Amino acid sequence: MFELGVVYRNIRRADKAAADGLGKFGSATVHEAMGRVGLMKTYMRPIYAGAQVSGTAVTVLLQPGDNWMLHVVAEQIQPGDVVVAALTTDNTDGFFGDLLATSFQARGARALVIDGGCRDVRTLQEMGFPVWSRAISAKGTVKSTLGSVNIPVVCAGALVHPGDVVVADDDGVAIVPAAMAGTTLEAAAAREANEGAKRAKLASGVLGLDMYSMRGPLEQAGLKYID
Amino acid sequence: MFELGVVYRNIRRADKAAADGLGKFGSATVHEAMGRVGLMKTYMRPIYAGAQVSGTAVTVLLQPGDNWMLHVVAEQIQPGDVVVAALTTDNTDGFFGDLLATSFQARGARALVIDGGCRDVRTLQEMGFPVWSRAISAKGTVKSTLGSVNIPVVCAGALVHPGDVVVADDDGVAIVPAAMAGTTLEAAAAREANEGAKRAKLASGVLGLDMYSMRGPLEQAGLKYID
Amino acid sequence: MFELGVVYRNIRRADKAAADGLGKFGSATVHEAMGRVGLMKTYMRPIYAGAQVSGTAVTVLLQPGDNWMLHVVAEQIQPGDVVVAALTTDNTDGFFGDLLATSFQARGARALVIDGGCRDVRTLQEMGFPVWSRAISAKGTVKSTLGSVNIPVVCAGALVHPGDVVVADDDGVAIVPAAMAGTTLEAAAAREANEGAKRAKLASGVLGLDMYSMRGPLEQAGLKYID
Amino acid sequence: MFELGVVYRNIRRADKAAADGLGKFGSATVHEAMGRVGLMKTYMRPIYAGAQVSGTAVTVLLQPGDNWMLHVVAEQIQPGDVVVAALTTDNTDGFFGDLLATSFQARGARALVIDGGCRDVRTLQEMGFPVWSRAISAKGTVKSTLGSVNIPVVCAGALVHPGDVVVADDDGVAIVPAAMAGTTLEAAAAREANEGAKRAKLASGVLGLDMYSMRGPLEQAGLKYID
Amino acid sequence: MFELGVVYRNIRRADKAAADGLGKFGSATVHEAMGRVGLMKTYMRPIYAGAQVSGTAVTVLLQPGDNWMLHVVAEQIQPGDVVVAALTTDNTDGFFGDLLATSFQARGARALVIDGGCRDVRTLQEMGFPVWSRAISAKGTVKSTLGSVNIPVVCAGALVHPGDVVVADDDGVAIVPAAMAGTTLEAAAAREANEGAKRAKLASGVLGLDMYSMRGPLEQAGLKYID
Amino acid sequence: MFELGVVYRNIRRADKAAADGLGKFGSATVHEAMGRVGLMKTYMRPIYAGAQVSGTAVTVLLQPGDNWMLHVVAEQIQPGDVVVAALTTDNTDGFFGDLLATSFQARGARALVIDGGCRDVRTLQEMGFPVWSRAISAKGTVKSTLGSVNIPVVCAGALVHPGDVVVADDDGVAIVPAAMAGTTLEAAAAREANEGAKRAKLASGVLGLDMYSMRGPLEQAGLKYID
Repeated sequence: MFELGVVYRNIRRADKAAADGLGKFGSATVHEAMGRVGLMKTYMRPIYAGAQVSGTAVTVLLQPGDNWMLHVVAEQIQPGDVVVAALTTDNTDGFFGDLLATSFQARGARALVIDGGCRDVRTLQEMGFPVWSRAISAKGTVKSTLGSVNIPVVCAGALVHPGDVVVADDDGVAIVPAAMAGTTLEAAAAREANEGAKRAKLASGVLGLDMYSMRGPLEQAGLKYID
Repeated sequence: MFELGVVYRNIRRADKAAADGLGKFGSATVHEAMGRVGLMKTYMRPIYAGAQVSGTAVTVLLQPGDNWMLHVVAEQIQPGDVVVAALTTDNTDGFFGDLLATSFQARGARALVIDGGCRDVRTLQEMGFPVWSRAISAKGTVKSTLGSVNIPVVCAGALVHPGDVVVADDDGVAIVPAAMAGTTLEAAAAREANEGAKRAKLASGVLGLDMYSMRGPLEQAGLKYID
Repeated sequence: MFELGVVYRNIRRADKAAADGLGKFGSATVHEAMGRVGLMKTYMRPIYAGAQVSGTAVTVLLQPGDNWMLHVVAEQIQPGDVVVAALTTDNTDGFFGDLLATSFQARGARALVIDGGCRDVRTLQEMGFPVWSRAISAKGTVKSTLGSVNIPVVCAGALVHPGDVVVADDDGVAIVPAAMAGTTLEAAAAREANEGAKRAKLASGVLGLDMYSMRGPLEQAGLKYID
Repeated sequence: MFELGVVYRNIRRADKAAADGLGKFGSATVHEAMGRVGLMKTYMRPIYAGAQVSGTAVTVLLQPGDNWMLHVVAEQIQPGDVVVAALTTDNTDGFFGDLLATSFQARGARALVIDGGCRDVRTLQEMGFPVWSRAISAKGTVKSTLGSVNIPVVCAGALVHPGDVVVADDDGVAIVPAAMAGTTLEAAAAREANEGAKRAKLASGVLGLDMYSMRGPLEQAGLKYID
Repeated sequence: MFELGVVYRNIRRADKAAADGLGKFGSATVHEAMGRVGLMKTYMRPIYAGAQVSGTAVTVLLQPGDNWMLHVVAEQIQPGDVVVAALTTDNTDGFFGDLLATSFQARGARALVIDGGCRDVRTLQEMGFPVWSRAISAKGTVKSTLGSVNIPVVCAGALVHPGDVVVADDDGVAIVPAAMAGTTLEAAAAREANEGAKRAKLASGVLGLDMYSMRGPLEQAGLKYID
Repeated sequence: MFELGVVYRNIRRADKAAADGLGKFGSATVHEAMGRVGLMKTYMRPIYAGAQVSGTAVTVLLQPGDNWMLHVVAEQIQPGDVVVAALTTDNTDGFFGDLLATSFQARGARALVIDGGCRDVRTLQEMGFPVWSRAISAKGTVKSTLGSVNIPVVCAGALVHPGDVVVADDDGVAIVPAAMAGTTLEAAAAREANEGAKRAKLASGVLGLDMYSMRGPLEQAGLKYID
């Protein structure tokens, strides 16, 4: 947050198995498994529907209207990473397009999460390189002011340390601190384990009121039925 | 609007034939047929394109970050209903996901209209359960504060009484008071009756200026053509 | 901007070959080719994905909640035109739907760009008539107050003169002044000429840092690497 | 909500003593006294600070960019009324200025609450005529399309029937249904009765934790203190 | 709009008497006098209440997060000017503070209108240098990318040519093209001439319905009174 | 960010002299002194103009529509603290009013910074207890769901650790990490030291172009003057 003009080359990435495993649960389950925290703001939307990824964060802090540091962060990408780009201020310019995506993809990045704008969205979809962004914008950027790479950043309201796990899908983007990746994976798996049984019950017409034993608490809270 | 902690079990639903029939006309035609009123705000968007539904409203008033009452309203759903969820304040949390959708669908609900957030959107699309919402959000909710079921609510700027007809499609969401359902159906049908002829004329190159006899009124209003 | 109640019938359209040619480059490349100017605000979105058009602007200035002038502008459309509709104030009503689209299409219009709302979006997609708008809204409009046709307008933050070239795609909407259409076409072509080579290099793993010789300037700007 | 082109001349106003009495409690206390409901959206702000009013609602529904019905509602104002102006769509134009304020004030209106824009704000402050609005705008309006007077309206998310009590201050705008005015006044008075004692305790350093006996419930909810 | 990196030194300013005279009428009257056009968006607000100015525009186009060109425009200011700063994209950074204000004031500028952020607002109020801005922000800016000075710009939705008249007050900001300054001044004066008489009538209880002879047109439009 | 239901009682506050000293420089200077970082979003506004404070942060994380933890944090306040309240989601309810302010003030708090709503604003101004908030709202809250106290939080886009220095004034809110308080104070002092000289020069008519030696760099960047 507070150092400009620096690039940290050595970061501790979350356990790879955990980082990979969290992806299949999706952002909603992962965020619940952490205790209902860790989500980015809802204005972060995928540029195309259906992508679901997880990976380890490499972070970058950008200046408004300036994408210079996206070239710097490219060199720090390792296979399995997701680039998380924060900004020093609100700005929707098109910091990222198909050329940078080609480079990121070549380095092994799985996705970009950017609290700014993105362009060439049709080409990105054809390439299969998903982006979660605050805007789509054809607006170009300059390359003249330094930001930083692999410092902790606040992206769309979420604190992201380099190496944290990023889980992104159609519902949004969740961040799991690297140290919590393993326990969160277990909690997510446990949470999903009995979802099938619940779904079957609800599909058969059983009410959540009964399945979750809510009638007592509701009555105690004062709920009144009127015919 | 003004009673918290109550569930009205007996509501007078709009005539079923009218409620069903209005769906095929869509929100734009229905709103015109009522005299250009009855629409929700434009921030209400379908979570996937192409759904077009109508049905009778069961209403629920939710507290911010709390989806307890969605379980309560589930029990009041009858086949052909559309659940309309209003909030006591602006909040985009993910009140609704695939488990509740399974339950609503099992009860015969056709859709949810919610002035809050929705999650599990990919699964909802696979299930064919359409939702119109103000946001998509992975954010979970608690179950601790009472709202109400089947009271009149204001949802996204529109007043909805239980039993009113809800018409929703890619253009938005329209509400038809139960007592006006029949006449609105007739007016919508009349409105559409001559659309085909109009469309054919316009497609052949006839101008709306002539088809609607606008040249006189435009001249009278002072319109000047400059070569 | 400053004349209400007038329709200019004779406008100087940009060179047709240039207007047509610019479309294939898309809004991002065209805006870069002009020196990174000329874009509308990012809230302007296509009502369906995948459309990419260019054409010469016929402009119209609308009053809030009033689409009367869209019928007036229809008569001024020539094949290859794109209608650009500005408003005298912020308003998201559904000024445009399938009937007007039928008329516009019959006159040879390629698209509509409107700083207001649009409805009948499913039918418009079936017709293949693309619209870039600030909102989707079922709300109908009246026909009672004059605006103007073919005066210079500000639409979504961009100045548009009648006859200018409009380039619109999934990334947004760019405006090229008629007098700059030819040189912009050349600049866009030049810009794209070496994109293939760049893309191939980046795909092979070459970094932008090296391809664009950024390491020196970054060091000079003070960038520090920390291991 | 659903009738355009009508003016109801005879409305049942809330009890005058209750309507007058509620004003001194302010919007926050009144909304609490009703059970935490009845507030307009937070975007409704006073055009100048410090005004605090209450009165009986006369309602008007306006079309976008059109203030014709404000002249119609003026005739229906009685001393002690507050005019509540709703719109059929989102619009921030300057529907109301010093001339209309002069007329409203002459009729005995205490304030205007409008889900649109207001202008001449300096003069209105000099006149001592308070307005709560969604925007300040110099934009003028036309007089050409009918709305309605004294029908139920939704204004800034709140349902308002003619005759309801409007309570407005620096914190916002609350609506009390006419039938609840008396009981709400009593509840508000009861609520305020022991505020002085509470304030004195808190000022002396007693904590809300103790004054409200929250330590037990917090512990039961699982709160942990870490040294 | 379309030239970056240029400074026009010789601009034709509107007639000084007209530019000065328009100020006393305020933005609402001036905008009406032009035919209800020429206003900036309502998000432009004064940093302190009560200022009312007019003057001739010197324009500047800024890049996001970069205030370099504000130093360039300072040199082009002449006494009686108002600086109008547009941006190439949406950005709320604090481009302007007390040091630049000191310089602008020393050059004779009367105000700044900026489609971005402003800081040091307390000091600016003490200095008596009014600013209309889209935001207040402590965020600093860099000086590294060129924009332009005295080209036509779009600022907050309004087209401004260098030399146009700017009229700003608590209601907003209006732009009068230089060539229309004289006639607009006359029209504004004519408009205000009989406002006193109107106000007196309305204050005495005469209704706008009668003063403007609206009863006939309302009846013709179909307005119905219901007792 | 990631622990719910905990209260840290022992936090390391920034050096008191530094925390106190930073206040007089204001948010803009302090943010510049840190290298142009550390600001909250511009939507955070003071509820009344003119307050300027600094102090050490005690932090609290709140759930939407629930102010229970504000009572918990009250006990952790020490004289000279500023309470920083973050939320788990966007919510504008009125979490804070005059009773809590009385308690906070009694404990020695200097201000509240809250990424939610505030009410009783007139009374708070009379009490001299400043609040920076995202909204003013009369909406009440419940007390039923745990958050946390004195964990790191993201408030309005800024990362805040307990013990950090908060600097707030009319321009916004800046956060200085506790470990940087001393050096930031020095840097701020150094920055202000020659502001007086600069101001005098600019007031005498010297241009920033000359005072900052910008003419060369501007020419090198390609700026062209056109007569």
